[in-house]
Amino acid sequence: MTDLAKRVYDHTWKIDPIVRSLLDTDFYKLLMAQTILRRHRDTQVTFGIQNRSRQVRIADLVDEGELREQLDHARSLRLTRGEATWLRGNSFYGRRQMFSAEFIDWFEGFRLPDYHLEKRDGQYLLTFHGLWVETTLWEVPALAILNELRSRGVLRHLGKFELQVLYARAMTRVWEKIERLKRLPDLSIADFGTRRRHGFLWQDWCVEAMLAGLGPRFLGTSNCLIAQRREVEAVGTNAHELPMVYAALAEDDEGLAAAPYAVLADWQQDYDGNLLVILPDTYGTAGFLERAPEWMTAWTGIRIDSKDPIEGGEEAIAWWRSRGCDPQAKLAIFSDGLDVEAIETIHARFHGRMRLGYGWGTLLTNDFRGLVPDGALDPISIVCKVLDANGRPAVKISDNPTKAIGPADEIARYKRVFGVPEQAALPVLV
Amino acid sequence: MTDLAKRVYDHTWKIDPIVRSLLDTDFYKLLMAQTILRRHRDTQVTFGIQNRSRQVRIADLVDEGELREQLDHARSLRLTRGEATWLRGNSFYGRRQMFSAEFIDWFEGFRLPDYHLEKRDGQYLLTFHGLWVETTLWEVPALAILNELRSRGVLRHLGKFELQVLYARAMTRVWEKIERLKRLPDLSIADFGTRRRHGFLWQDWCVEAMLAGLGPRFLGTSNCLIAQRREVEAVGTNAHELPMVYAALAEDDEGLAAAPYAVLADWQQDYDGNLLVILPDTYGTAGFLERAPEWMTAWTGIRIDSKDPIEGGEEAIAWWRSRGCDPQAKLAIFSDGLDVEAIETIHARFHGRMRLGYGWGTLLTNDFRGLVPDGALDPISIVCKVLDANGRPAVKISDNPTKAIGPADEIARYKRVFGVPEQAALPVLV
Repeated sequence: MTDLAKRVYDHTWKIDPIVRSLLDTDFYKLLMAQTILRRHRDTQVTFGIQNRSRQVRIADLVDEGELREQLDHARSLRLTRGEATWLRGNSFYGRRQMFSAEFIDWFEGFRLPDYHLEKRDGQYLLTFHGLWVETTLWEVPALAILNELRSRGVLRHLGKFELQVLYARAMTRVWEKIERLKRLPDLSIADFGTRRRHGFLWQDWCVEAMLAGLGPRFLGTSNCLIAQRREVEAVGTNAHELPMVYAALAEDDEGLAAAPYAVLADWQQDYDGNLLVILPDTYGTAGFLERAPEWMTAWTGIRIDSKDPIEGGEEAIAWWRSRGCDPQAKLAIFSDGLDVEAIETIHARFHGRMRLGYGWGTLLTNDFRGLVPDGALDPISIVCKVLDANGRPAVKISDNPTKAIGPADEIARYKRVFGVPEQAALPVLV
Repeated sequence: MTDLAKRVYDHTWKIDPIVRSLLDTDFYKLLMAQTILRRHRDTQVTFGIQNRSRQVRIADLVDEGELREQLDHARSLRLTRGEATWLRGNSFYGRRQMFSAEFIDWFEGFRLPDYHLEKRDGQYLLTFHGLWVETTLWEVPALAILNELRSRGVLRHLGKFELQVLYARAMTRVWEKIERLKRLPDLSIADFGTRRRHGFLWQDWCVEAMLAGLGPRFLGTSNCLIAQRREVEAVGTNAHELPMVYAALAEDDEGLAAAPYAVLADWQQDYDGNLLVILPDTYGTAGFLERAPEWMTAWTGIRIDSKDPIEGGEEAIAWWRSRGCDPQAKLAIFSDGLDVEAIETIHARFHGRMRLGYGWGTLLTNDFRGLVPDGALDPISIVCKVLDANGRPAVKISDNPTKAIGPADEIARYKRVFGVPEQAALPVLV
């Protein structure tokens, strides 16, 4: 039976919007936005998209008009009543009222700010300048839009049947990964794949698959909208942008050296429990841990993000021991370019030695590698990073020089201040 | 948007019918029916279902009430005007008016005759007694109903998500087989999978996949309804029931020995071209070919059905050579329990030595092996064979004693008359 009403209604759509809700973003962006609103509401920053997979010329694949339409559509979104109700009434990490009335009021009046878009060398220069608390909320939807438009550009050329087989293969691949993961004892894994996802509906399917396959071993998703709709946990803590902005705002080298700890001191006041996960690698993990104040040892865990995970895990265990803590009571969260093989390796090495959590991103929600010719759907390493704060350049070093961000002289200064040694470059897959 | 009208309409279905058209049958049943109508319209036979996979207790898996409902629904079907038009107007094997006005008139008045059903030892005794031309048309729908009801019985216990992954896997499997087949030079392959299919919609999907993947290398389908709807060739020639009934009706040993050739003599009058494919194995291929009349060498090809395919192919080549024919001008059709490995092996051995055609059945349209626990969806070897004709027992020997049918004393007599030597049993997978 043809649903005439639906067919006619569908004709009225001008575009098929990629981002349809302000909650279609990562949970930690909201936690960070609340901290920023509370402590840095006047700070101005610039965020910018950077495609580290330069060989993929996104500007040739994605029409500028379509990109603008999608970004403009995202700018038209407002938090709905039901979404605000969910933020107010839901418990996050077992705690009610995670978000203050002040933050939710602010969020209800929020719209995504303007953007600047131009093409250069087959890439899009897409930047967001303005209040930190506003521009920070562009990161996830902007990346999700670019990634999904790229997917759509490729999928447009496939027939109905090729599409069906493509998704059958992708589903089979995800399910086979989940079946392997099932075998790991005491697994705890979450979806971190919003920004680099193949598409919204695909991420949603992946979450459904994780839930069906892993049950309580699936901790939840970083995506607030999917968490709300599927009634699963929304998960995540904080990201590099906090130390990057705090560092950029520091008045001198002493302030710079203290900035990463200032972030955690603020965070500790704002949140607690499982949200107290240290992200130590912004300016090199080794120096960060070495100089860490004693109170940091009380934190729940460490996120190991840009270092070889085995090395990073051993480093965390050694650090906790050196501070008189029992690593078995501590949590290590791995989240850098994970796939099943890496998770298995990490689990084999560390299971029983500390509590383990996995944030599985791109290779959960966008593993279409090899499924179309020329790898045209293979995920790309695209990021949206803070470039400056109140006019000063922002810098990231991390444990992998391939991921460094900032002007060369500033990078040199940061390396000196943080005592960053020579680093070995690791390939960045996604 | 919920289509209320459709939802309410769907409530009115009492059952979800498995067979919805009299054309949902194999093309060769119609060719044979036409020959039977023309030459043996008063012959009475009995067809009976036999499940060679005795370990699968179908009567425990399939509810008798549901089975009766499906069989009764099939009995309510009449050839529609559009279906009759297709039979009249379509060309088959490049020939128009393959079916006579007399046959189509008869078919328009046809309904499937009554059936007899009882349970025994976990199996259904399902038999059809009556006019040969009527009961012969039960074979395919009865098998398709039993196979699909068994699938449904298993699928009923799966959740929405498990079903989705199941079909994703099955689709991926079929598509990967097709991609392997694509590499074979001069491939010509057809779907012969109606009777043992997982379900009608699945067979239809498999045909779509073959068409999309193989293009003109996909010769067509044996299923008339799918051929009509998808506008592909309907293919097939004849089956063992013809020599079995001719043999049963023979008055003496001399008539018995002549019966298989009488079948071909009649067939040759009724049809020509690519329909002139010898099915030599009913009472042993070796003896059949040895005693074949000279006019049989003019036939287009041989179907190799119950013998090891390499042995059978070599036997065909040797026979054609012995009769002064060029095997390269002849067609060998392989159709016994084929899967990709077997097709590749056969192709590697015979490509270039004779024309090759493959009739791919059960392992195209029902390869759900291992996709649910305990192999509950693995295909079974179930057949519907003629048991007697005008009160005399029907006998099949074939090249594989596992497939022999008939009373022991009659099998012994047939073996003597046809000079069948000791045979090695081959396992029957499907």
